[in-house]
Amino acid sequence: MEDLFKELDCLKASIDEAMEAAVSGYRCDVPLIREAMAYSTEGGKRLRGAIVLSTYKSLGGNGDAMPFALAIEMIQAYSLVHDDLPCMDDADMRRGRPACHKKFGEAMGVLAGDALLTLAFETACTSDLPPYRVVEGIRALAYGAGAAGMVGGQVLDLQPEMSNDRIDEATPADPAGQSDPAERVRLMYRLKTGRLFETAARLGAILAGAPDKIVRRAGDAGMSFGVAFQILDDIEDASQGGTEDQKATLPATISLEKAREEAIMGLQRCQELCRQFAGPDYLLGRLAAHYLVSKLG
Amino acid sequence: MEDLFKELDCLKASIDEAMEAAVSGYRCDVPLIREAMAYSTEGGKRLRGAIVLSTYKSLGGNGDAMPFALAIEMIQAYSLVHDDLPCMDDADMRRGRPACHKKFGEAMGVLAGDALLTLAFETACTSDLPPYRVVEGIRALAYGAGAAGMVGGQVLDLQPEMSNDRIDEATPADPAGQSDPAERVRLMYRLKTGRLFETAARLGAILAGAPDKIVRRAGDAGMSFGVAFQILDDIEDASQGGTEDQKATLPATISLEKAREEAIMGLQRCQELCRQFAGPDYLLGRLAAHYLVSKLG
Repeated sequence: MEDLFKELDCLKASIDEAMEAAVSGYRCDVPLIREAMAYSTEGGKRLRGAIVLSTYKSLGGNGDAMPFALAIEMIQAYSLVHDDLPCMDDADMRRGRPACHKKFGEAMGVLAGDALLTLAFETACTSDLPPYRVVEGIRALAYGAGAAGMVGGQVLDLQPEMSNDRIDEATPADPAGQSDPAERVRLMYRLKTGRLFETAARLGAILAGAPDKIVRRAGDAGMSFGVAFQILDDIEDASQGGTEDQKATLPATISLEKAREEAIMGLQRCQELCRQFAGPDYLLGRLAAHYLVSKLG
Repeated sequence: MEDLFKELDCLKASIDEAMEAAVSGYRCDVPLIREAMAYSTEGGKRLRGAIVLSTYKSLGGNGDAMPFALAIEMIQAYSLVHDDLPCMDDADMRRGRPACHKKFGEAMGVLAGDALLTLAFETACTSDLPPYRVVEGIRALAYGAGAAGMVGGQVLDLQPEMSNDRIDEATPADPAGQSDPAERVRLMYRLKTGRLFETAARLGAILAGAPDKIVRRAGDAGMSFGVAFQILDDIEDASQGGTEDQKATLPATISLEKAREEAIMGLQRCQELCRQFAGPDYLLGRLAAHYLVSKLG
């Protein structure tokens, strides 16, 4: 595990440094918005960015995938800024300091989030990888971040009853699952959290020029990890005295013990997939192993 | 002028049709978000999209620039959705119907805007133009829409005093202008409205593979048009009984008559530039001529 932490720290440090340059060094006539953007991109574990970089390298990429690592971290940062707004989760604090909208005002919270989401795509365009791969990467990023991914998951998270009634009956493989509350929560987890981890691993594979089959497997591994990550987060919240509101979570829906089992299965599946397509040294597989031991052991 | 309206109507109809397919036909598991996105992309004159398409064609482009026309219109649409939020302009109505957040709730207003901004970039990636041009186009689009463009302008618009104190002293060509209220309003107009029209014309030129000099001129023409467009809008508001709040506008700052003169000069400059780089048939130049006669004649 020592080595895993060292690698994560190293990736985080390089992402932090590049992020500082990309945001604080961004040329614009309104320093206030840049300040709010910089504030909102500080901190964070940079897990998604680290998965982009390590997947890229593990699959033989030898160029610079950093613009996409920054882009996915900017998207993660903007989603937290908007999520903390009064009309959303209404959170005053984030990572131990005032949320963006508490420090800069609510309108600036909306605009700083918008500007970060936009900067994510501008930053991705600075990549010097082959343009067709950059386009494919931007497309995957937007797909994972938007209505079919993270934003769609946030809709389900915020308005469970309202949206559940209106989930597309034609889309899921198992339409019967739609009336099952646990299936609803699982879909919310897949979209809200799973999709961006899936996207991180997919991005690394796409940018490295991996064949479609590997891109899909990398995505599956990221999705399994992301969903387990969200389950663990909700288990932790539940064991620390319950969630603050009436939000639907998997532990609350199918019991803590069964949710634990699903997290274990997801991490094992992630490990297995990672071993298949990238070998034992690949960061995501080792991360899954670490979570299995430290959080579920 | 007959011909101009016919051309505009025709471009609008093709953009409307493609928009409907791109948004209502978007595959995602949460129909509610798609519904809010479709609602927010209906209506509108599609001027920015029409400028993308017509600039592209005028400069010899013979492929499909529609994905970028849709992208800029999605960005225009998202900016209105976020602008109408209670913490921003707090507008209940938009284009004669309830604003997105009044119909779908405030959280959905935030999320539908986020999803549209994200879909803009995903849609741009569907272009079948050469990938290096697509990347250059996406970069120009993000630059124009973000902190250095539209979003930056909205910060200045919403918090004039707060942000004016903090405008970057190093950036503008005329630092003395920073303490001049009219210069502040002009910067706000350039960023908030001018930049997206500039981007529309630049996009058409970039996608057509025009040389840098032409891309710059097209951008200048779009900027001149966009700023004049905003001045005319504020003049109209002022003559219809004044603006609803204490927002800084050019008519209020330098007088109605002087603002009129600036709008005339901007439209004339736009016409002149358009004639130089694209000839007399180019839509943007004819649009400027039309505004000169119909709104300022």
